[in-house]
Amino acid sequence: MTDRPKTPLLDRVKSPADLKSLSDRELRQVADELRAETISAVSVTGGHLGAGLGVVELTVAIHAVFDTPRDKLIWDVGHQCYPHKILTGRRDRIRTLRTEGGLSGFTKRSESPYDPFGAAHSSTSISAALGFAQGREMGMPVGDCVAVIGDGAITAGMAYEALNHAGHLKNRLFVILNDNDMSIAPPVGALQTHFNRLAEKGPFAALKAAAEGFEAHLPGPVRDGARRARAIVTGLPGGGASLFEHVGFDYVGPIDGHDMGQLLATLRAVRARATGPVLIHCVTVKGKGYAPAERADDRYHGVSKFDIATGQQVKAGSNAPSYTSVFGQRLTAEAARDPRIVAITAAMPGGTGLDIMAKRFPARVYDVGIAEQHGVTFAAGLAAAGMRPFCAIYSSFLQRGYDQIVHDVALQNLPVRFAIDRAGLVGQDGATHAGAFDIGFLANLPNFTVMAAGDEADLCHMVATAAVHDSGPIAFRYPRGEGRGVEMPEVGQPLEIGKGRILCDGTDVALLSFGAHLSEVLAAADLLAAQGISATVADARFAKPLDTDLIERLIHGHSALVTVEQGSTGGFGALVLHHLAAAGLLELGRPIRTLTLPDRFIDQASPAQMYAWAGMSAADIARTVRHMLDRRPVAGSVQPT
Amino acid sequence: MTDRPKTPLLDRVKSPADLKSLSDRELRQVADELRAETISAVSVTGGHLGAGLGVVELTVAIHAVFDTPRDKLIWDVGHQCYPHKILTGRRDRIRTLRTEGGLSGFTKRSESPYDPFGAAHSSTSISAALGFAQGREMGMPVGDCVAVIGDGAITAGMAYEALNHAGHLKNRLFVILNDNDMSIAPPVGALQTHFNRLAEKGPFAALKAAAEGFEAHLPGPVRDGARRARAIVTGLPGGGASLFEHVGFDYVGPIDGHDMGQLLATLRAVRARATGPVLIHCVTVKGKGYAPAERADDRYHGVSKFDIATGQQVKAGSNAPSYTSVFGQRLTAEAARDPRIVAITAAMPGGTGLDIMAKRFPARVYDVGIAEQHGVTFAAGLAAAGMRPFCAIYSSFLQRGYDQIVHDVALQNLPVRFAIDRAGLVGQDGATHAGAFDIGFLANLPNFTVMAAGDEADLCHMVATAAVHDSGPIAFRYPRGEGRGVEMPEVGQPLEIGKGRILCDGTDVALLSFGAHLSEVLAAADLLAAQGISATVADARFAKPLDTDLIERLIHGHSALVTVEQGSTGGFGALVLHHLAAAGLLELGRPIRTLTLPDRFIDQASPAQMYAWAGMSAADIARTVRHMLDRRPVAGSVQPT
Repeated sequence: MTDRPKTPLLDRVKSPADLKSLSDRELRQVADELRAETISAVSVTGGHLGAGLGVVELTVAIHAVFDTPRDKLIWDVGHQCYPHKILTGRRDRIRTLRTEGGLSGFTKRSESPYDPFGAAHSSTSISAALGFAQGREMGMPVGDCVAVIGDGAITAGMAYEALNHAGHLKNRLFVILNDNDMSIAPPVGALQTHFNRLAEKGPFAALKAAAEGFEAHLPGPVRDGARRARAIVTGLPGGGASLFEHVGFDYVGPIDGHDMGQLLATLRAVRARATGPVLIHCVTVKGKGYAPAERADDRYHGVSKFDIATGQQVKAGSNAPSYTSVFGQRLTAEAARDPRIVAITAAMPGGTGLDIMAKRFPARVYDVGIAEQHGVTFAAGLAAAGMRPFCAIYSSFLQRGYDQIVHDVALQNLPVRFAIDRAGLVGQDGATHAGAFDIGFLANLPNFTVMAAGDEADLCHMVATAAVHDSGPIAFRYPRGEGRGVEMPEVGQPLEIGKGRILCDGTDVALLSFGAHLSEVLAAADLLAAQGISATVADARFAKPLDTDLIERLIHGHSALVTVEQGSTGGFGALVLHHLAAAGLLELGRPIRTLTLPDRFIDQASPAQMYAWAGMSAADIARTVRHMLDRRPVAGSVQPT
Repeated sequence: MTDRPKTPLLDRVKSPADLKSLSDRELRQVADELRAETISAVSVTGGHLGAGLGVVELTVAIHAVFDTPRDKLIWDVGHQCYPHKILTGRRDRIRTLRTEGGLSGFTKRSESPYDPFGAAHSSTSISAALGFAQGREMGMPVGDCVAVIGDGAITAGMAYEALNHAGHLKNRLFVILNDNDMSIAPPVGALQTHFNRLAEKGPFAALKAAAEGFEAHLPGPVRDGARRARAIVTGLPGGGASLFEHVGFDYVGPIDGHDMGQLLATLRAVRARATGPVLIHCVTVKGKGYAPAERADDRYHGVSKFDIATGQQVKAGSNAPSYTSVFGQRLTAEAARDPRIVAITAAMPGGTGLDIMAKRFPARVYDVGIAEQHGVTFAAGLAAAGMRPFCAIYSSFLQRGYDQIVHDVALQNLPVRFAIDRAGLVGQDGATHAGAFDIGFLANLPNFTVMAAGDEADLCHMVATAAVHDSGPIAFRYPRGEGRGVEMPEVGQPLEIGKGRILCDGTDVALLSFGAHLSEVLAAADLLAAQGISATVADARFAKPLDTDLIERLIHGHSALVTVEQGSTGGFGALVLHHLAAAGLLELGRPIRTLTLPDRFIDQASPAQMYAWAGMSAADIARTVRHMLDRRPVAGSVQPT
């Protein structure tokens, strides 16, 4: 506690209502104290820091001007919400962020009425805010609706769809564009150029107000600046209406998002006068006010615990390479051998390991921005042109490109390679980032080949397998985090399609693993061995096509069969059951269990804890087996032999 | 044959290469003949007429100016491609459109090298064209890349993502905006206003060329018009750069898409001069050149066979109401009782039956345009605000909103109601429109309730069930086409959640149907009865939560169990198997089969024929049962009792 900053004014703010009685000067001080408290909290929890620091003033100003929670404030993505959580009654738990039982690292409806719409995936805020606004028009008890969205997030298609619809409906709605010129990766896309141009056009002390008379209601100095800025903007060759005015928004800005005076004046003006949708373009600095963050390339986007004085982050030592880096390195090696290999990321070059390939082959790595739909079909176009595209998208974000996977890739049987990181439960990022559904949503599609890496060595082989697989789409999934520490092959070898492997031979029960839960399955086999139960452990490698020979050998040769996967129902285990049913092998009456993620979303904790909650620890697997073997046979069934 | 139009010049065009030697005047004549041939063909096949008639001149001009198939011409959606098919070697089969064994109603890679990228879902063309263009930059044998996209399709987020990426990459690429001011429904969205404003700014005889010197290369009269148009556009208050210039495209237009001279001059100019991405804004009239189509509200978007002289369409008589109209009427009735009910469609008010509700409650039906992602999250926002939103989206188009369903709806457990039309195989529209995957992609999500209507009376009850279901998301699916002709309830009654029904009691085999294949299942039971096999027929109604009591009664009380659903693996049957495994009921050794759609995409034919190909006819079901019961037991299994 001695390390905590002095925050005398912030200490008096128990909820946003307490901001109403403060002067503008005091609000400025609240912001300073809120910044110090945010830095202090994240220094012990780790998490997203840069984004929150960029919106400290904005957070204070919005809560001071608007009437939350009746007014609905929706943070896009939600990773910038730590200052918001501190102001909205959650300060006492802010040092539990992203930990088991603690606060979520994102906004979350179940956590607070001040989080009217949770997030974590990007670009949903305008749609949600528009839904609330229309609810208000229909008589629901909703006040003003404010979406705060970053310059990276607004490039996603769904944000554009929402802007377009809001411009059409013409009801009062506030969208604050938090333009910090940096999403997770350095910004890409032509829209960025547009923002840069807008932001450069006037001094930050200037407000460009649209024609509806905002200017007249601004304080004198701001009004003058606004007039000057507007003249500059509209007078430039090629300038004129902003993108947002094209779709029907009033456009206000750009304003300095760290200048409390500008923020308060602007928000008060738009709140008093707006009759339709308004976009407020707010320029901020990610990591603002914390020198180590402002200096860092990534602006401390996501950090581990750190020393406040130096900014030095505590790095966990690891013995095995991460799956992500293995993928990045092996793909780079394949690309060195094969000029047809290109890679696609949706704003995650570092997170996917494609930054490794981009260093060596910058022209062959496409960062499409937060645009998974386009990214998938762009990859399909590349494949149709004869290239060998690897589309590297996290499991949960790949959901954004599902129709494109079905309609553009699977239906046309185009050889797009999907490298699916963050498969299974992911730890601190919780349920929103869990890669729970990809096995089912891919392996039930015709033409697809679907693999999962049992360990980091197999990931090497799967990269090699995908590289040469030209007969249709192929996907391979692997988890967040480090591998098992197995010996790595010098060069990945293409696997035989649809063939699994047996890791240890037993006699009583067959454990058929698909993917990275293999280490737990092996541990379960050890537990069972200690109890006198002999288990075969097999790694299916493929959910599609299934290794039906292997499955049939397992079911014939053992008293019971358990499938294990880091995914939901309807995936690997389901396909095994479908096959056994169709092949008439359920008539054997063997006990079978399909261990999958349970039918609920699982909050953040360590991955091990999350899998324990899911009933998927080694002990759980062993217990399941004992229960199956001990179970009195159902009347009419045969004894396990 | 006597009814066919005289097409002397078109008869000489066997492939686009034959256009190269024709004069501009002859190309104009080819277009006229192509229009007549298109009308003649569709009068006997039915299909999409208005869209094709709108692009007749454009089709001729593109093939005359560009070097297809080396140059890649990608039609967005593809429903406007009939004239293109006639010109590209498929004229001899044009009267087989959308029929069994005939030409697809959309572009299709397997059909012709002139279809480099198939389509049917909207807004994919720019992404695909950009993929081809980048393939060319990497050395693949690809020429110019031309995407033709409608004003409706370009409002979708993925088109915007693609424009943004193309503007960033800056490589040569042509996007032709086919602005016919009408997608399937009357246009919505603010972007439409933008197009209208652009189109109104100059005479159609005018070309606004960007700064790169296009104008100088245009013929004199066109050049003068272009200069005039540009002056008008840039001189207007609030005018200036177009939306496309904001994202980095050169913008050319608007031009008259039915003026062959303008089209040829413009395409030749951009082909000769473009170095980066160019958008050509082309204004067309849907249904152009066929008076009955031009007069019709829907411009003959989709038609049945018709009489050319009168335009009179042959309407098939039907005895039962369509599921679509039942949904529309029953939802309207629920909305009359409950002011919290609102409905969302993504550009399909007629196709979903929401036009019925919109007539009575226009302010409570939102058409978000082709924007399924936004539509789903907008609905989630409405639900969070306390409304009762029904999101009515076809099964295959709902794939576009999958991440929003997972992240915004299921994870937050918001009571959005999904009304899923076109579930299962759909007939003439073929594989792209099949609703094959929704059971799996919804029923494996936590918090979801998933129903399917066994007949049109049950659909009434499901609308009522969904209306009052506030505890979480709920979906109900139903097929294209007419119901079974069952008696209709006066008022729908909410069903008990998770409870199925038994339609007839038997003793030998249990047939457990989920959804509208119920009629085939009942027919199968009749076939079996004639062969001395007594079948129980049950309608599960719910894939989630499962009626586990019913399932357990069926498996205990019969020698065999067959599940039947109009969907892929990983759905209802999979969930039944997962449950039986977990409950230890596979130890009974009962034969079980899960009848699902097969692991391949199925081309267009009648729905009955498509299901026959899928092995799901009543005869197939009966044969499956006989095979299960006749089957020699696997060694070690018990005899069916």
